[in-house]
Amino acid sequence: MEHNSALCPKFESAFTLLSKKWTGLIIQSLLAGPKRFREMADIIPNMSDRMLSERLKELESEGIVVRTVYPEVPVRIEYALSEKGTALETVMQEVQKWAEQWV
Amino acid sequence: MEHNSALCPKFESAFTLLSKKWTGLIIQSLLAGPKRFREMADIIPNMSDRMLSERLKELESEGIVVRTVYPEVPVRIEYALSEKGTALETVMQEVQKWAEQWV
Repeated sequence: MEHNSALCPKFESAFTLLSKKWTGLIIQSLLAGPKRFREMADIIPNMSDRMLSERLKELESEGIVVRTVYPEVPVRIEYALSEKGTALETVMQEVQKWAEQWV
Repeated sequence: MEHNSALCPKFESAFTLLSKKWTGLIIQSLLAGPKRFREMADIIPNMSDRMLSERLKELESEGIVVRTVYPEVPVRIEYALSEKGTALETVMQEVQKWAEQWV
């Protein structure tokens, strides 16, 4: 997989996005289906609510996560992967396969 | 891809390792073949030598990178991916594919 001398800028920006602390785990948790904030916070130990909220905002602005507000009483807010986010499943599967064999 | 309630610890530690800033790009550059320190530093813009050296030490201790010293004059030191490191190629390819389509 020979690359030109400089690393592919798209790869670089994708990896920079994905390599932010907690991002991979948040995406992994949403691959199993839409979640509310508290559900995600419970699944990913050691991550602060402030960090989860920051990462969700970033992922929303990147078009990877979609936030839906259900006007119920009380209001229900759910986070789900967009098509762009769901397309990350194979990346996550490959990380999982590597982890099972090598970690 | 349903997971038990807590995220798989192996996935978590693999993603935490891979998501350190610059690590993905260093692995990507070594997938194209063994490199000397200066060659890697030139390929990955904006990364300090101190950071590259720190990451290489971590990757060595994780068994992902192998450092070989050739007793020539002057001494030649090369970094290459181990079998464990080379096994990351599919992860990198999936990131590249996703990046080309979505970034």
